[in-house]
Amino acid sequence: MFSLKDIEIAQQAEIVKITEIAAKVGLKPTDIDQYGDYKAKIKLPVAANKKTKGKLILVTAINPTPAGEGKSTVTVGLGDGLSLLGKKAIIALREPSLGPVMGMKGGATGGGYSQVVPMEDINLHFTGDMHALTTANNTLAALIDNHIYQGNTLGIDQRRIIWKRVLDINDRALRHVVIGLGGISQGIPREDGFDITVASELMAILCLAKDIADLKRRIGNIVIGYTATREPVTVTQLGVTGAIALLLKDAIKPNLVQTLAHTPAIVHGGPFANIAHGCNSVIATQTALKLADYTITEAGFGADLGAEKFLDIKTPVLGKTPDTIVIVATIRALKMHGGLKKDNLEQENIEALTKGYVNLRKHINNMKQYNVPVVVAINQFTSDTENELITLQKLCANDETEAFVANVWANGGEGALDLAKAVVSSCDKTTEFKPLYEVEDSIQTKIEKIVTDIYGGSKVEYGPKAKRQLKQFAELGWDHLPVCMAKTQYSLSDDAKKLGAPSDFTIHVREFVPKLGAQFIVALTGNVLTMPGLPKTPAANGMELSDDGQISGLY
Amino acid sequence: MFSLKDIEIAQQAEIVKITEIAAKVGLKPTDIDQYGDYKAKIKLPVAANKKTKGKLILVTAINPTPAGEGKSTVTVGLGDGLSLLGKKAIIALREPSLGPVMGMKGGATGGGYSQVVPMEDINLHFTGDMHALTTANNTLAALIDNHIYQGNTLGIDQRRIIWKRVLDINDRALRHVVIGLGGISQGIPREDGFDITVASELMAILCLAKDIADLKRRIGNIVIGYTATREPVTVTQLGVTGAIALLLKDAIKPNLVQTLAHTPAIVHGGPFANIAHGCNSVIATQTALKLADYTITEAGFGADLGAEKFLDIKTPVLGKTPDTIVIVATIRALKMHGGLKKDNLEQENIEALTKGYVNLRKHINNMKQYNVPVVVAINQFTSDTENELITLQKLCANDETEAFVANVWANGGEGALDLAKAVVSSCDKTTEFKPLYEVEDSIQTKIEKIVTDIYGGSKVEYGPKAKRQLKQFAELGWDHLPVCMAKTQYSLSDDAKKLGAPSDFTIHVREFVPKLGAQFIVALTGNVLTMPGLPKTPAANGMELSDDGQISGLY
Repeated sequence: MFSLKDIEIAQQAEIVKITEIAAKVGLKPTDIDQYGDYKAKIKLPVAANKKTKGKLILVTAINPTPAGEGKSTVTVGLGDGLSLLGKKAIIALREPSLGPVMGMKGGATGGGYSQVVPMEDINLHFTGDMHALTTANNTLAALIDNHIYQGNTLGIDQRRIIWKRVLDINDRALRHVVIGLGGISQGIPREDGFDITVASELMAILCLAKDIADLKRRIGNIVIGYTATREPVTVTQLGVTGAIALLLKDAIKPNLVQTLAHTPAIVHGGPFANIAHGCNSVIATQTALKLADYTITEAGFGADLGAEKFLDIKTPVLGKTPDTIVIVATIRALKMHGGLKKDNLEQENIEALTKGYVNLRKHINNMKQYNVPVVVAINQFTSDTENELITLQKLCANDETEAFVANVWANGGEGALDLAKAVVSSCDKTTEFKPLYEVEDSIQTKIEKIVTDIYGGSKVEYGPKAKRQLKQFAELGWDHLPVCMAKTQYSLSDDAKKLGAPSDFTIHVREFVPKLGAQFIVALTGNVLTMPGLPKTPAANGMELSDDGQISGLY
Repeated sequence: MFSLKDIEIAQQAEIVKITEIAAKVGLKPTDIDQYGDYKAKIKLPVAANKKTKGKLILVTAINPTPAGEGKSTVTVGLGDGLSLLGKKAIIALREPSLGPVMGMKGGATGGGYSQVVPMEDINLHFTGDMHALTTANNTLAALIDNHIYQGNTLGIDQRRIIWKRVLDINDRALRHVVIGLGGISQGIPREDGFDITVASELMAILCLAKDIADLKRRIGNIVIGYTATREPVTVTQLGVTGAIALLLKDAIKPNLVQTLAHTPAIVHGGPFANIAHGCNSVIATQTALKLADYTITEAGFGADLGAEKFLDIKTPVLGKTPDTIVIVATIRALKMHGGLKKDNLEQENIEALTKGYVNLRKHINNMKQYNVPVVVAINQFTSDTENELITLQKLCANDETEAFVANVWANGGEGALDLAKAVVSSCDKTTEFKPLYEVEDSIQTKIEKIVTDIYGGSKVEYGPKAKRQLKQFAELGWDHLPVCMAKTQYSLSDDAKKLGAPSDFTIHVREFVPKLGAQFIVALTGNVLTMPGLPKTPAANGMELSDDGQISGLY
């Protein structure tokens, strides 16, 4: 049954013209810019002129393990399931980053019969959004170094520049670099570093901006560094807000593609909810909410990261809270949370499953804190036993939560019909959203609430640099901004090895990165890195392009 | 008359659907991938299945000065002129680089009423070719550093890596960097540097590859560095040829746009003929030759750089030599070559013009050495006097060369009718192409012939590193490859200040860069840089994006 690879299923699928997909949600050919026959960008005024009407479903998950969870796959399958029920549904996903595509196997287009297509294009350059962000980010970096080289009238202290360069590549050798070497005519030597593009402030801005005016306002507010007397220096002061915005004029438009079952999918905005906020863009989600009755969107990694940021950072800007939260779990992954190694997942093991369930329970309870209805999706694998599936449903029922088996990899939307029906009823419940923290809470209070109420930890420790920065932020009036936690995705704690539902642990904040354009402060915890590295055998080594342009080895 | 800016003319122009432009040259909607309504990529099989039939016209120029020459503008005007004469013409231009667009005023889409459109898109991200190249180049760089970090089974010497990283940005601070800092888990510290993307070997490969098979062959042959025992290490050995080729699968397809007069224009391949070979891609030129009766293409900067490389590097791969060479000159620029400063160009000055004519004469004689018919285009400016124009025509006539006044900025194709008629007659002449050097000539002989027969110099001096490399290349069997000279564009010599037609000078070759995938050796002369810097006031500082997405300040 699982003999075909994802790319083969995608390549063999019948795909319809993007104009047909657009027509399904009332978009005329003049409302979109086509990128080939199967991709399009939705022009901005389209969304601006319509009213928000749809229900919003947020798909999140347990903490990821090497066993695989399939959040994107369930998101796609659920969307197709809702379509099968006759509902007007749109899926709103994030765009893949080329770094992981070339590094560890895995794009971000779902799998099996629950994929968005054309998967090769989406996983490679797509419509160029990542590249536009990389270019805009590095153009700003070049303009900063050039400003200093040409006389530095703003008095930027080259030791205090916080604007880093970026690439959409996993490249550990660029984490820490010294630039401007080679003598007087090459600029001023200074320490610098590269992040992966999706971790950039411009990506966050693109994902949070409501329109072009908001995009420009946020770009202008970016603090790129400080003077010797520690005054912040902004992009507005550099006078290049227009140039940076102009480089993003197309990237800000949401991308339209389709699932294998021809459900419209809007794929826009950045992944990496471990080091970024990692949500589909506000413009994309808003567009989906205006065009469809059901918008199914995902947040990255476990609910401790992606969903927390979706609910605490994105929701206030979006002006709409989820009507239902779907938490994806797999029997295999829960058994790993229960202590099994990856090699021992094929055998039935009720004990490990029951033990590992604590991870799912924690996320269920966390999401219920926001007072949003929660439904669990069990993403079925062939090795799951009937006994295991029933056990998990019972465990969830004991916590007053319905859990549905979704067989979306093999069966697409047909495999998610029960889940889809449950989601429809769930969305009809009226509940009042309860935020985790208040806007006026201090940075420390916000972090404390996230650590105790979401992660299940007991304490926050700030490193020397983080302590100095908290003082500085108070002086600058930045101490009430939302917080974007950068933390390992593998554990509720900041130690990747603590699976299950650890408690009584300390979260270590080593450093903050103020992002005044994005309007949040990033808190770097544990050893989290903002530029990944490549593995011993990168996925790139298995990729081929045939003489007639056919791709293989892409996952 | 010249009150409108180029961008305003372009924005006010009537632009027709790209499917209509495609239809003009027999391309069906299924032959192209649309990128919005006004841009498309031509699918590769389209060109492969047709016979080459058209005439090839190469547009080149005198050495550039700050007065402006308008080579692209004349190329576009000539194409529109040929269309007005009822000829089936295609213009084949290079793609602009964002570096200069953000740096010094000037994209690469022509000017006035001789432009290709949509100029904003072409000058910004266009169809993403530059970004695909940047990504492929830097993915390979990350794979190299990762190979060393993960055990270095190929034994790459990190002091002997010649594969540099690139960005499509003018960023002098990245010319010389140290990477891999930060401790054991960040890789191996080593010296590195960034070039501008257009100077990359992958850009040269994209421009010279005949098809996907040739693209892969060339990528596999790239030498990325050496082992400690100085054995070359190739991309084939790294096992990532497929991944790098796959990142270029769309970039290799030629881009179709239109002129303001709706003449089809294929814009594909890299500029920067000073540090790269700087020609429209072989696939693009071949496609144009198959679809049209007249293909008008350009080579970068003066004929000493762009045209020499077109004729010595591109022509043998293309398998077709130009039927006519058009040399573009302006009265203003020739007066600068005659010694005038930029502020004194508005007044008639026959003496300076006559003195500066030596630059044009040198290029005329150089091009005639290849035994291709030469026509001069005088790109008219409002300040040119009748007396000056007649004088220049007489000077050319004395050298047995016809010169035509082209008023293409103000009048588009109408302003190039005489030139177009002359080009048509010229293309009917039968001549036998005479190459400058033989394929089997050594690198030194090739450089010597370029320096004496084209530049007009008397001697070549090799620096210590270049001398060492010549020995190494002889041992490796690379000593008969074509040479791609990297030299200042402002002078026939390697000293940017020597205008006119200097003689009896020495060319200093300081270093070679072997490009085994591109199949040429780059010779770096004088102080030429492969990563430009930004000026005191970058063009970026004048750019704006309105709230409804309109661009201004782009040139």
